[in-house]
Amino acid sequence: MEEEEIFEHIEKNRDKYIKWLTDICSIPSVAAQNRGMKESVDFISKLFKDELDCEVEVVETSGYPILYCEIGGEHEKTLSFYNHYDVQPENPIELWDSDPFKPEIRDGKIFARGVADNKGNLIARIAALSAIKDIYGNFPINLKFIIEGEEEIGSINLSDFSNLHKDKLKADACIWEFGYRDMDHTLQLTLGVKGMLYVELKLKGANTDLHSANASIIENPAWRLVWALNSLKNNNEEVLIPNFYKDIREPTNEELELLDQYFLDEEEMLDYLGLDKFINDLNGSELKHKHLYEPTMNICGFGSGYTDEGAKTVLPSEASVKIDFRLVPGQDPEKILKDLRNHLNDNGYKDIEIISHSKEKAARTLSTEEIVGSAIEAIKKVTKKEPNIVPNTPGTGPMYELCQKHGIPSVSFGVGNFSSRNHAPNENILVEDYIEGIKILVSLINQYKN
Amino acid sequence: MEEEEIFEHIEKNRDKYIKWLTDICSIPSVAAQNRGMKESVDFISKLFKDELDCEVEVVETSGYPILYCEIGGEHEKTLSFYNHYDVQPENPIELWDSDPFKPEIRDGKIFARGVADNKGNLIARIAALSAIKDIYGNFPINLKFIIEGEEEIGSINLSDFSNLHKDKLKADACIWEFGYRDMDHTLQLTLGVKGMLYVELKLKGANTDLHSANASIIENPAWRLVWALNSLKNNNEEVLIPNFYKDIREPTNEELELLDQYFLDEEEMLDYLGLDKFINDLNGSELKHKHLYEPTMNICGFGSGYTDEGAKTVLPSEASVKIDFRLVPGQDPEKILKDLRNHLNDNGYKDIEIISHSKEKAARTLSTEEIVGSAIEAIKKVTKKEPNIVPNTPGTGPMYELCQKHGIPSVSFGVGNFSSRNHAPNENILVEDYIEGIKILVSLINQYKN
Repeated sequence: MEEEEIFEHIEKNRDKYIKWLTDICSIPSVAAQNRGMKESVDFISKLFKDELDCEVEVVETSGYPILYCEIGGEHEKTLSFYNHYDVQPENPIELWDSDPFKPEIRDGKIFARGVADNKGNLIARIAALSAIKDIYGNFPINLKFIIEGEEEIGSINLSDFSNLHKDKLKADACIWEFGYRDMDHTLQLTLGVKGMLYVELKLKGANTDLHSANASIIENPAWRLVWALNSLKNNNEEVLIPNFYKDIREPTNEELELLDQYFLDEEEMLDYLGLDKFINDLNGSELKHKHLYEPTMNICGFGSGYTDEGAKTVLPSEASVKIDFRLVPGQDPEKILKDLRNHLNDNGYKDIEIISHSKEKAARTLSTEEIVGSAIEAIKKVTKKEPNIVPNTPGTGPMYELCQKHGIPSVSFGVGNFSSRNHAPNENILVEDYIEGIKILVSLINQYKN
Repeated sequence: MEEEEIFEHIEKNRDKYIKWLTDICSIPSVAAQNRGMKESVDFISKLFKDELDCEVEVVETSGYPILYCEIGGEHEKTLSFYNHYDVQPENPIELWDSDPFKPEIRDGKIFARGVADNKGNLIARIAALSAIKDIYGNFPINLKFIIEGEEEIGSINLSDFSNLHKDKLKADACIWEFGYRDMDHTLQLTLGVKGMLYVELKLKGANTDLHSANASIIENPAWRLVWALNSLKNNNEEVLIPNFYKDIREPTNEELELLDQYFLDEEEMLDYLGLDKFINDLNGSELKHKHLYEPTMNICGFGSGYTDEGAKTVLPSEASVKIDFRLVPGQDPEKILKDLRNHLNDNGYKDIEIISHSKEKAARTLSTEEIVGSAIEAIKKVTKKEPNIVPNTPGTGPMYELCQKHGIPSVSFGVGNFSSRNHAPNENILVEDYIEGIKILVSLINQYKN
């Protein structure tokens, strides 16, 4: 394959590839709220058909369907791609500078919900194959796509899919769905993800909101939830659920070396976020270790009573909190859920209801795998710079279910930047990162085919 | 005055008096949200003019105006009435069985926001005077009305009014704005109120919501607020702000006797609220003591991050909590606010912003005052039952500012019932309680004139 020829072709067709992306970002595919899901499936199916002459198989689940697509089959090597077509909810909507579902290009950036996470990556991958096909008519390796619709709500049906369709998963390596750049624009190459346990804790008091004069004698569920939370993590950031840290597999020497090479621009990150320190005043290798190799217990949301303008004197009848735990290798979300239940029972909170939204195990690929080498080469070629190798992202995905569980190595890189603001208002990618992302894919396929 | 003749007149005109009430309840006078305030002022002014031939003086403040109205002046005794024309916000709107601002009569009850707190009382008082006037053409004592528009947002301008218009406040006794019945339908006669400090605590983290993967190294304001709250009140309901309990004036023997007579139907209250115990498992005189004579620190609302449907993995950039303290005689809200600030500073929460919404001192009238005796007589006459004397309500109002500060004794009673649900969805009063409320006022004026 002549990479330069394809790169030229990509440059000539950049407006077309950008339009594919802004078109799919106009669909508000918020799985949590069941919006625009069918429309997304149709859009993607049509794109594969029209541009890659590939029939998408729509695999039904008890939730949103998983799209599967296979190209070739005659080659020795198979590379698979995992992506998702759902996005996070767009609220708080008032903090967006433009409509999250009317993509806008400003200052060289495309702004839209999902443009970084991860429609930009999905469409860049399709665009890369389309460019190769335009020039060569076929591909040097077999290719597979798995595109789910529930990544942002915890990939609830992916485990079933993974068990029922081992044949569809089968591949020599997998390119994962996400990817960002550092502040200095170095591209990150990620070899793993943290796991996840997402729970909602709900507590009820009286059967109606009451005048707050009753607070003298009627229990307040918001207060009890505050005390319960305080019993779960102390202000030194230590999780107090029994055995929470016990099963963690300590990082290997190789993993600790990768941590040394991993670059985190502390000053710029703090400056960018308007902060003067990291958690527990950490810095240097301790900070990096905490970021990549330690679990979290995070409050995603706390809601109770009156939170609008002004002062309402009310004793709320309910309180609830959403919590995500990011887990590291060795930790089992099922076991932690049980330990959480026991802890609450033992501390006087039997009446707290736990709703479990998602459970995923952590995953890591060794840096000695062939796909890692190919990816490094491709990234160097296109970005003219060594990638920043991230042993595992502090984020989560169902990588374990689709890859490591079946012995498939996986890497992740993509078109996002440091300030892509995924999951937040004004999500964006740089137009140039998007075009480079298409080229890296072309180059990766070229490296990996050998 | 022939009370029976007036009572008959009231029965004949009940539909008219009910219409006045449903008309004023159709105006959504939510001060916290600046809705329907001018309209309420106009409605009340017109009612006083049309029905009592009395010109209302609209006293401007830096917020909503205070309405003042004086009838007579030739008599020795002056009785004043304190009421308010603002109401609490209606949310959560979805829990109302009918539109909060389209009053509906069902099962002998009138449902509307503000019908119990306190438009029912205001209009019952006007109706009582209108009935006396219809029969006798004039009144046996001087009468004054003070009607403010900011009671539900902390009576922020009433203190200034009280200082600037001592002449308008001057009275031998004051009838306060609220009143309810016990579960067994015994009417409560209240001699005082708790004080109030309402604050909002706000905490900011990063300058934007972040993907929750960052929770490993970026501080979460929701967690820090949980820990700060935990440092302010422990799970034994003890407020930990230094000196919080120090200045409390212990109840006198007379007040402790009143507490013995005070009736609280524990079983029915728990049953009604769907609960199996009171706070700290209290009952009997300890429970009553806590309810009437001890201060509270209540969470009215806690808001942070994602609280909608489903699971969003976000690290919130802000968290805030609304808290009301109900204070007892001796406690000074200004001092407690200072102690709260110091406590937060001393515990590592200098960056928590405190917004103070309202500050009021507690107030109590002695049961030996003449107005108390007149009220007891009037209530016994109309309801055929001794009232339940409440030394002070667990609720709050600016009674101290308007009455006790100027040496004016005050009592409170009204048309609400045990399940009036003031400040909550489906606020209501019984039609018959409303009519009896009008009659009690007539009888009280007749007793007090002697």
